[in-house]
Amino acid sequence: MIRALPLGSLLLLVPLTLSAAEPGPAPSAVRGSQFPRLNGDGTVTFRVRAPKAQSVQILPKGDHSGLGDKPIDLKPEGDAWNVTTPVTPGFHYYSLVIDGFEGVDPSNQTFFGWARECSALEVPDPGLTFYTPRDVPHGEVRVCTYRSKVAGGLRRVFVYTPPGYETERDRRYPVLYLQHGSGENERGWSEQGRCNVILDNLLAEKRAVPMLIVMENGYPTPPDQPPAQRGAAGGGPGGPDRFGEMVVKDLIPFIDGKFRTLADRENRAIGGLSMGGGQAVRTGFGNLDTFASIACLSGGIGGSFNQETSYNGAFKNVEEGNRRVRLFWFGSGTEDRAITGARSTHEALAEKKIDHVFFEIPGAHEWQVWRKSLYDLAPRLFRDKGAAATQ
Amino acid sequence: MIRALPLGSLLLLVPLTLSAAEPGPAPSAVRGSQFPRLNGDGTVTFRVRAPKAQSVQILPKGDHSGLGDKPIDLKPEGDAWNVTTPVTPGFHYYSLVIDGFEGVDPSNQTFFGWARECSALEVPDPGLTFYTPRDVPHGEVRVCTYRSKVAGGLRRVFVYTPPGYETERDRRYPVLYLQHGSGENERGWSEQGRCNVILDNLLAEKRAVPMLIVMENGYPTPPDQPPAQRGAAGGGPGGPDRFGEMVVKDLIPFIDGKFRTLADRENRAIGGLSMGGGQAVRTGFGNLDTFASIACLSGGIGGSFNQETSYNGAFKNVEEGNRRVRLFWFGSGTEDRAITGARSTHEALAEKKIDHVFFEIPGAHEWQVWRKSLYDLAPRLFRDKGAAATQ
Repeated sequence: MIRALPLGSLLLLVPLTLSAAEPGPAPSAVRGSQFPRLNGDGTVTFRVRAPKAQSVQILPKGDHSGLGDKPIDLKPEGDAWNVTTPVTPGFHYYSLVIDGFEGVDPSNQTFFGWARECSALEVPDPGLTFYTPRDVPHGEVRVCTYRSKVAGGLRRVFVYTPPGYETERDRRYPVLYLQHGSGENERGWSEQGRCNVILDNLLAEKRAVPMLIVMENGYPTPPDQPPAQRGAAGGGPGGPDRFGEMVVKDLIPFIDGKFRTLADRENRAIGGLSMGGGQAVRTGFGNLDTFASIACLSGGIGGSFNQETSYNGAFKNVEEGNRRVRLFWFGSGTEDRAITGARSTHEALAEKKIDHVFFEIPGAHEWQVWRKSLYDLAPRLFRDKGAAATQ
Repeated sequence: MIRALPLGSLLLLVPLTLSAAEPGPAPSAVRGSQFPRLNGDGTVTFRVRAPKAQSVQILPKGDHSGLGDKPIDLKPEGDAWNVTTPVTPGFHYYSLVIDGFEGVDPSNQTFFGWARECSALEVPDPGLTFYTPRDVPHGEVRVCTYRSKVAGGLRRVFVYTPPGYETERDRRYPVLYLQHGSGENERGWSEQGRCNVILDNLLAEKRAVPMLIVMENGYPTPPDQPPAQRGAAGGGPGGPDRFGEMVVKDLIPFIDGKFRTLADRENRAIGGLSMGGGQAVRTGFGNLDTFASIACLSGGIGGSFNQETSYNGAFKNVEEGNRRVRLFWFGSGTEDRAITGARSTHEALAEKKIDHVFFEIPGAHEWQVWRKSLYDLAPRLFRDKGAAATQ
C-alpha cells in the first residue's frame, strides 16, 4: 500500500537556506573543463579566454533566473575574462555575450532552448537527490523514428521505458505524453528535465506506477510552412490544434503499435510545461475519449475559469467531469508570472468542487521547478482517485 | 543469398563532380533559422548579427575540411555579417569566431566534438541516400545507464537495436562495439555518424546482418584523475588500456546481461575512428578471446607492420591468425594523413597474405568518410569468411 504524496510534500525537501554545492567544475561543464566553476559558497566563477574582445558578459535567460535578471560583466585579467557571481541551485539557461554577440559558452554543455543551442548551468542542490542518478535499476530513453501524416514527415520521438520493461515481457504499461516548452524540443524532458532519472528513482522507492513517457516535438510544422522558432502555440498551423491532431492521429497509434501499452483513456495522460502546458490542456480536454489525466506545468492553464467553456466544457457538469477526469494537475513556481492564473484557477475550481491538484513551489520559470513538478506529478498518475494509491 | 559488397564498391556511388544540394537552410540549421543557407550551387552563406563586433569569421575545424583550411572572413552589411563560400557535401565541424573568440554558431546545431559543443554544417550529397532517413522499418537508439567499476562511476551508453528486436522476441543478435574519435563522446556515432539510419537502410535492403551497435565514451577517466579533453589515448589512466579493461570487464557483461546478444567472440566486433580506431585495435587484438572482428577507421592502425609484435602478435602464425580473426577491416580518406600508414599496412599485410579489408575513399578526416566507412564495413560483419555472405 502506497499513499500518494500529500500536496506540497516536496516543499519540505527544499532547504530554507541556499545550500552550497561542493567546489569544483559545474556538472554541466564539458569534460575536462575547469569552468564554469562552483565555489561551494553559493557563487559560480566564469572564466573566458577572449583576448581581443572589448566586452564579455554572462546573460541569464528568462525572468528571475538562478543567475539573476541582468547581464553580468566579466572583467579582463591577462588574456582571460572573469567573474564570480551568486547562483542558486538548479538549471539555468544563459548566454555568453562577446562584444554584444549572444552566443554559447563553449566550456559548458548546450541544450536546445530559446530556439537554439543554449548554454545552461547545472548547480547541484545538496538537499535534493531525486534527480541524481543512483545505483537503482535504470530504465532507458529510446530515440524512435515515425512518420506523421499530419506534420508531413519522419519525426523523432523520445520514449522512456521503465526498468523491467525488457524482462517482464507480457506486462503492459500506462503512458504519459509529456511536452517541452516554447523554443525547446523533444530532447528537453530527458536532457534538461532528467525525467528518466526522476522516474528511475521514484520506481526504486515504489512511489510511482511504472509507466512509459513519450516526448515529441511541440512544433508539428508541415513542410510547406515556415517553421516556428518559439511560441506559435496560438492555434496557427504550427500550433496546438495541429499538435493535438498529430498526437491523436499519428503518435498514439505509433506508440500503441510499437510498445506494450495499456491503450485506453484511463491509462493515458498528457502533460507539458509552459507552451506545452497549453498544448496538454487543449489536446487533453479536447480528447477526453483518449486521455483521462491532464497536467499543466507553469503556464497554459488560463486564469479566468468559465464553467461552460473552459477546458472544452469538461466541467459543465461537475459530477460527470470529476468522474471522467482521473487527474487534473497544475502548478507553477511562485516567482513565475504563471502563478497568478494558476492560483485564481485553483480558487475557482475549488469553489465549484472540481477535483484537481494544485502545486506551487518556490522558483521561477525554470527547469528546477519542472523537475520538482514531475516528482510531485508522477506518483499521482494512474492511481485510483480518492483512494490510497497502490502499485 | 547476399554477396558481401566488393571492396571499393562505394566509390561508384560518389559523384565525380560535386553535386549541388537544394537551395535552402542547411539541414543542420536550427528550426526556423534561414542560415547557414545552402545556395544549390556548391556554396553556403553564413549570416551573423553582431552589430558591435570588429571581426567575424567562420573557422573550419580540421585539415582539408569541406569548408576549406583557412578562417573565412565575414563582411559587415548593416547589422549583419555575411559570407558566401564554397562547400563540399558532408558534415563539417566549424567555429564561429567573434573578435578572436572561438565560439559556436547559434543558428546551427551543435555536436560534441573538439572537446566541446561544436557547430557542424550538414551539406546533403544528392548522389548519396544511404544515411538519409527513409520510410523503412526503423531501429532505435537507446540511452542506457550502467556502472563501470573500472571507470568508477555511472556511465551513459548508446545502443542501436535493429528493427524487429522488439517483435522477434527470442532472436539473439551479434554486437558491434563502435567508438568515436578524440574530443568526441558517446553521442558521436548516432548524431554525427547517423549509424542508426545507415543500418536501418542497409537492413531494409537485406544487405547486412541485423546487429546491435554499442557506443560508449572513450574516456574512462576514474574520478580521482583529471579528465582528458582530447587525445590522451596513449596508454595513460584515461587511455586505451583502461578503456579496454572497462569494455571487457564492465561494458560487455552489462550488454550481454541486458540485451539478447549472441555472447561469443564470433559474434562480437569492435571498431572505432581515429583515436577510437587505436582503441579498437588495442582492445580487439588484446582480447581475441572476446572479439573476432576488428575495424579501424582513419587512424590507429600504425604504419610499420611487425609480424612478431604488431596487433599483439595475432599474425605471428598467419594461418592461425587468419582463422582466428574473422574480419580485419581498416581504411581512411585519401586526403587524411592516416592514409599513409593505412596504405603501407595494407601492402605489408597483403605481402604476408594476412586477410584484411582495406578501404580507401576520397575525403578528409571527417564524418562523411566515417559514414561511408560504416556503410562498407557493416555488410561485411558477422559473415562467413571467404563465402558468399548470407543473412
